[in-house]
Amino acid sequence: MVRTLSLVLALVAATGAAAADKPTRIPDAALKTASELRESALKDQAAWDFVEGLTTEIGPRLAASDNDAKAREWVAARFKALGFDKVWSEPVTYPKWVRRGEHAEITAPFPHALALLALGNSPGTPAGGISADVVAFDTLDALKNAPDANVRGKIVYVGPRMHAAKDGHDYGIGSTVRVTGPALASKKGAAAFLLRSAGTDDNRLPHTGVTDFTGATPIPAAALASPDADLLEHVLKRGQPTTIHLALDCGIEGSYTGANVIGEITGRGKPNEYFVMGGHLDSWDPGTGAIDDGAGIAIAVGAAHAIKALPQRPQRSIRVVAFANEEAGLFGGKAYADAHAKDIAQAVLGSESDLGADRIWKITATVKPSARDAIGAIAEAVKPLGVEYDASAPGSGGSDLGAVHAVGMAAVSLHQDATRYFDWHHTANDTLDKIDPAQLSQNVAVYAVVAYLAAQADGDFGSAAGAFASDKGE
Amino acid sequence: MVRTLSLVLALVAATGAAAADKPTRIPDAALKTASELRESALKDQAAWDFVEGLTTEIGPRLAASDNDAKAREWVAARFKALGFDKVWSEPVTYPKWVRRGEHAEITAPFPHALALLALGNSPGTPAGGISADVVAFDTLDALKNAPDANVRGKIVYVGPRMHAAKDGHDYGIGSTVRVTGPALASKKGAAAFLLRSAGTDDNRLPHTGVTDFTGATPIPAAALASPDADLLEHVLKRGQPTTIHLALDCGIEGSYTGANVIGEITGRGKPNEYFVMGGHLDSWDPGTGAIDDGAGIAIAVGAAHAIKALPQRPQRSIRVVAFANEEAGLFGGKAYADAHAKDIAQAVLGSESDLGADRIWKITATVKPSARDAIGAIAEAVKPLGVEYDASAPGSGGSDLGAVHAVGMAAVSLHQDATRYFDWHHTANDTLDKIDPAQLSQNVAVYAVVAYLAAQADGDFGSAAGAFASDKGE
Repeated sequence: MVRTLSLVLALVAATGAAAADKPTRIPDAALKTASELRESALKDQAAWDFVEGLTTEIGPRLAASDNDAKAREWVAARFKALGFDKVWSEPVTYPKWVRRGEHAEITAPFPHALALLALGNSPGTPAGGISADVVAFDTLDALKNAPDANVRGKIVYVGPRMHAAKDGHDYGIGSTVRVTGPALASKKGAAAFLLRSAGTDDNRLPHTGVTDFTGATPIPAAALASPDADLLEHVLKRGQPTTIHLALDCGIEGSYTGANVIGEITGRGKPNEYFVMGGHLDSWDPGTGAIDDGAGIAIAVGAAHAIKALPQRPQRSIRVVAFANEEAGLFGGKAYADAHAKDIAQAVLGSESDLGADRIWKITATVKPSARDAIGAIAEAVKPLGVEYDASAPGSGGSDLGAVHAVGMAAVSLHQDATRYFDWHHTANDTLDKIDPAQLSQNVAVYAVVAYLAAQADGDFGSAAGAFASDKGE
Repeated sequence: MVRTLSLVLALVAATGAAAADKPTRIPDAALKTASELRESALKDQAAWDFVEGLTTEIGPRLAASDNDAKAREWVAARFKALGFDKVWSEPVTYPKWVRRGEHAEITAPFPHALALLALGNSPGTPAGGISADVVAFDTLDALKNAPDANVRGKIVYVGPRMHAAKDGHDYGIGSTVRVTGPALASKKGAAAFLLRSAGTDDNRLPHTGVTDFTGATPIPAAALASPDADLLEHVLKRGQPTTIHLALDCGIEGSYTGANVIGEITGRGKPNEYFVMGGHLDSWDPGTGAIDDGAGIAIAVGAAHAIKALPQRPQRSIRVVAFANEEAGLFGGKAYADAHAKDIAQAVLGSESDLGADRIWKITATVKPSARDAIGAIAEAVKPLGVEYDASAPGSGGSDLGAVHAVGMAAVSLHQDATRYFDWHHTANDTLDKIDPAQLSQNVAVYAVVAYLAAQADGDFGSAAGAFASDKGE
């Protein structure tokens, strides 16, 4: 026995750096517990109760609003009530954007009220609104290539359509128009910017979302509901001068300090190391923030609750983060990354849920090569839940945890079915009824198994300062 | 030959009353033309152009609003532009109900804004609104059976759900709550009435619609969007006193005289007899009245336009009616019935389209027995369009023409697929994008064939004053 040990020690000394790459593995006992956890987590009601409670007792949670502060207290109290071993918060500071209201009408040639929402970071119009002719472009490139004289003083409209997909890829099109379109129009002298909502539905409920005026003079910017965009296009098709009256009452008013709210189940073996999961607590204001992203926190809460119900605490800690102000630019994720960059190796693996509550269909990861087999074992453990493993694709960890991954946290991505998500995302339709309890439970079970196995892994996943600096994520 | 004719005449004389029941038949030449018409009507663009134009150039058409008057002029001009031989209007007088706005909030125990719409005929609240505790009932029967003391001074909420169906049968549930619930609550001393919208969707867009206070003191009455009804139920489930602040600015302001707008393709053989079809021109105000009921008139316009394009005018006239104020109680249909009761036999057969623009899947009719074979022949002619014939079920002619059927017009019902209709009906979502051009064309072709064959029929369908008085319609 002693000789054997001596031999091992000698080999370790001989291989030097390679010793650090001893393959990470998932112990058999952990896999056995995980298969039981998979079943118990499917029955755990904590996730549903969390998102039902948050949407019923609080509702919309625009970052920096009164409800945002109430929600932080609510979440901390819920974490405590659920028996988390530690609950704390970490400050996050960001600009405070407020919405007081908006309305718009086509005034000529055919009067029509328009359903629209101002974009986050949009300034308001002067009181009483502005009236200007509309100039329409099919794409941002068409706007970019237009002579400034055709744009100056006008309300620019850009109206590409998004189509639903399991991986939600068209959001790339819609969000690019929303995020970059207003600044581009501003640089060309436009009076205001309107887009067709970045959504896949045909409801008369506009999709808000953030825009970015970095390097440009902010101009009023808003999203039309898709049927209203259609109507505007039908009016424009007649070739007559078309005028819109636009009144937005909104804008940035100083800064605000909120917080990431954090709860932890303390590990019994390596309490300073942790698996981290969560979602963002802020929501856009028209809905009650059920799918974006009450569900994300709820799934993590449910998973942690199911793990806590096991006979023994896991080796490593299980951390749930309710991030602050993801919507206006990942402020919570960036603050977490700043605060924890120095000890990022303790965050052994992480995944955030921020694509609704429909079922997880795929797992991908970005970890060190010697942890790849451990990810394969974790993937095998969630396969009975209908999750396929794509070993060739990276994992970013999700929105806020993507910012944490960028400073060195190993990351797994648990890809949800986004087919329905962009019908409701950022609209008044983001309400509890859009969550299917059965699919929510599947999410809880997947997260519970992944979190538990990461917490029990023999070895780490490569988290280290700057470890994945060259990785672009998903 | 002569002897044969004599024999026939003798038989006719001998059978007396039976002579009037000589079977109505569809001439072979008419069936041949109809099969060509079926194809040409599928390609006719007049229906799409009509509903695109009406929704783009006019939009919402609340009865008695400025847009209602503009729409009548627009339709008359369009009828003339399409080459209708005669265009006229007939006055229709009704109470003028106006909506200026509404809002409501749950104020305790958890503040939430509620998406709702006042019901047609609802009075407003006092300025500043009312605040009262909510009392909820699952059904109207439960409300009926509740002690008055439990209801007095409260805001009554009744929340049954509707489910989508091809024949839309759940609208019976939803519309009964909407039409009769407020008066019932009023009789028990309620301060106001709220219902879960009579719709099959889960959008945060409430469904308005008419209510009826006959025999009761009008009280403020409004429909909550389905997710808002869910939210209210989740709040109530907590068992705490729940207060709503309700502010409706609406009510009846005197009376208004509008009109049915009528266009006719004049028949070459029996110009005073006519097949009548159409829809209602008024719409609820939140949407642009595309499926309810711009499409109905559009389908009739398309069918008439396709018939007009035939080498010869049909034997009988083809009449298209754009009815006034169907929504608040079939005012246009009743006015038409009053005006034409004395010469109702001239309306040989009629059918109104008022269930959207999705495809027709069934034909039924209420005609005299000796015209049943002719209906069978007409049904056979539309079978290639995917329409089945149910010879055992009655046909009411549709909403306004149902009122005309009640005074003696023989009626056919061309049943549309209503699966999607009650997702959008009476909401802001009633917009042009909800119309599928291919299904709209199928409707046009069915109406064209039915109208044409009725106009060419050798014999009538039994229209006569009081002919179908005992028939309850569909």
